[in-house]
Amino acid sequence: MNDALSAALHRAADHQRRFETRFAAYFDALADPAAGAPQPPPPGRFPARALDLVRELSLRGGKRLRVVLLHEAAALVTDRPVPGLDEAAISIELLHTHGLIHDDVIDDAPVRRGGPSTYYAYRDEFPDRPDTALALAVLAGDLAAFLAVRVLLTGDLPPDRAVAMAAVPIEAGADAVNGQLLDLERDFHPEPDTAFLHAVTEYKSTRYSVLAPLRLGLLAAGADPAPHDAELRAYATAVGIANQIHDDWLDLFGDPAVLGKPLGTDLRAGRRSYLVRALLAATAADESGRRTLEAALGNPDPDALAPVRDLARTHGLDRTLHAEALRHAHRAAALAATWHTRWRPGAVAFFTHLPAWSVTRDH
Amino acid sequence: MNDALSAALHRAADHQRRFETRFAAYFDALADPAAGAPQPPPPGRFPARALDLVRELSLRGGKRLRVVLLHEAAALVTDRPVPGLDEAAISIELLHTHGLIHDDVIDDAPVRRGGPSTYYAYRDEFPDRPDTALALAVLAGDLAAFLAVRVLLTGDLPPDRAVAMAAVPIEAGADAVNGQLLDLERDFHPEPDTAFLHAVTEYKSTRYSVLAPLRLGLLAAGADPAPHDAELRAYATAVGIANQIHDDWLDLFGDPAVLGKPLGTDLRAGRRSYLVRALLAATAADESGRRTLEAALGNPDPDALAPVRDLARTHGLDRTLHAEALRHAHRAAALAATWHTRWRPGAVAFFTHLPAWSVTRDH
Repeated sequence: MNDALSAALHRAADHQRRFETRFAAYFDALADPAAGAPQPPPPGRFPARALDLVRELSLRGGKRLRVVLLHEAAALVTDRPVPGLDEAAISIELLHTHGLIHDDVIDDAPVRRGGPSTYYAYRDEFPDRPDTALALAVLAGDLAAFLAVRVLLTGDLPPDRAVAMAAVPIEAGADAVNGQLLDLERDFHPEPDTAFLHAVTEYKSTRYSVLAPLRLGLLAAGADPAPHDAELRAYATAVGIANQIHDDWLDLFGDPAVLGKPLGTDLRAGRRSYLVRALLAATAADESGRRTLEAALGNPDPDALAPVRDLARTHGLDRTLHAEALRHAHRAAALAATWHTRWRPGAVAFFTHLPAWSVTRDH
Repeated sequence: MNDALSAALHRAADHQRRFETRFAAYFDALADPAAGAPQPPPPGRFPARALDLVRELSLRGGKRLRVVLLHEAAALVTDRPVPGLDEAAISIELLHTHGLIHDDVIDDAPVRRGGPSTYYAYRDEFPDRPDTALALAVLAGDLAAFLAVRVLLTGDLPPDRAVAMAAVPIEAGADAVNGQLLDLERDFHPEPDTAFLHAVTEYKSTRYSVLAPLRLGLLAAGADPAPHDAELRAYATAVGIANQIHDDWLDLFGDPAVLGKPLGTDLRAGRRSYLVRALLAATAADESGRRTLEAALGNPDPDALAPVRDLARTHGLDRTLHAEALRHAHRAAALAATWHTRWRPGAVAFFTHLPAWSVTRDH
């Protein structure tokens, strides 16, 4: 492993550890006016339970790649402590929690981050009232969204910085909603084109998972990201696409033991992923291949998967799709490499190596 | 009618008319980057349709009492044009749209503001896919929430004012979510006490419909509402309770032709309203009365309503409930009357007369 990347991953682990403590303290304070809650918590059991579930899901956080990106973005311009970075990290992770809770309502998904989804936690509590469980989950998701913005508006940041920073999760939240809408729309297209898939990726994940942390980190560190906006967007877009293509690749060619989930979940759900689009294109003139694919798409039977994997290999998709992810990753890395002229080398190295990592992870 | 009130209602009609035009122009601009949209609209049909439905419901707005309150709150301190008031009005109405869209998902409600609810508009478009309709409605509601905050953060307000103002709909949004949670919790209580009903009213409607517009109007006009916070809260709470008790009263004793909806909708839905609580208390020692009540609560049959109305009249609840609403209205009016010493008389008169109006409307 490259030295710069290994140093960055070491820093990443530090950021993540510190963040878990800070995030838990944030939730403690919310429930305790003496610890500085912005206002007394509401009465009743249901509001307290909703906040508990937002907390539980938020603290079951995984890699916290967004938090790491945020810290590295600030480190592009300074190696000094940056006020507001913790609030920005909490904001972006709460926004993510909001999205996950509503996604799991939308997808009727029982499991999230190795535990029950918020919706199914409520379904367990109200086994005879699925309508109540659904209502409570929608509301818990809404609560997370409002908390995500509040944390940036009620801190000690100078007002101009608070306005600029709070606008980021707001914009990212609206983008992610539009991404979810595009994701739903995609599955009504028999064969969505690549531009449409790129748009889904851009709105559904890139903007809030990559671009928003980049902007927030720079803003918190006192840099104006506006002059670099086109470049930051181009970087984020390329990383986002590389990452998503790799995810789609893993769904068919990954190792279930490494992934911690069975293969083919997207295929079984009938998702029009980059992989499915490539399979559709490859089987346009291959009638029996197309039949194999159509038999597997949206088919919950795990046995339908192996023939599709063989089909994909026959058409060389295991290689071409990976090459396509790499191509986007290289584009991102080449962009980040030019940042050496204006930004600090350690963080620039992180952003230069991140794309390659993101298309080889979980291999 | 009192002169001050009639002048205020005249101003209110002006505010409402101007606001409708301004609100429509806001939506036009959102969909049109040339007109100053903060960023290009996303591709695809689903995002555009969600925004259309947010727009449609938002512009089917009714009395716009929140907008009127906002303008009158600014008029407490100045008679000059106040920058940011339009953005504040758009923000608070979009927040309301957000709440309505999610409420109608939660309540499975087909009709809202004399047209289809967003959820049912989608159900009409996807008759075979209720799950998709639900997903789209949840997302459209989310979109409205993000737009509600964005409009205050992307305008031309000075940063300190933008931060203070944006925090208001955020706080109000979180409060309203907690109010919805308390509302759901209420119906799990066989006999919720008055304090609990007051808390539901406070969180579910008072804070964003009365307190938030008051704060936003003062902030936009350059006044700091913080020194008056306890008083503003007490006023808002009293108006809110008066208004809610009157609403509950109307559900049994109103004129369906004036209300534009059938009587007894809350009773039929089994809602533990102020009215139901009064009926439960009144029939604690009246076994046959209690049986009548229990037969009607949650019973969709409209014929079950008349016996409950007779029962309520027998126990004098038509008078005592109205007297209770009046008592809270008087408390609010007495508070507002003391504002003469520091604020402008025209707007003070409005706030003094509003409570009485709110417990006699639709009579």
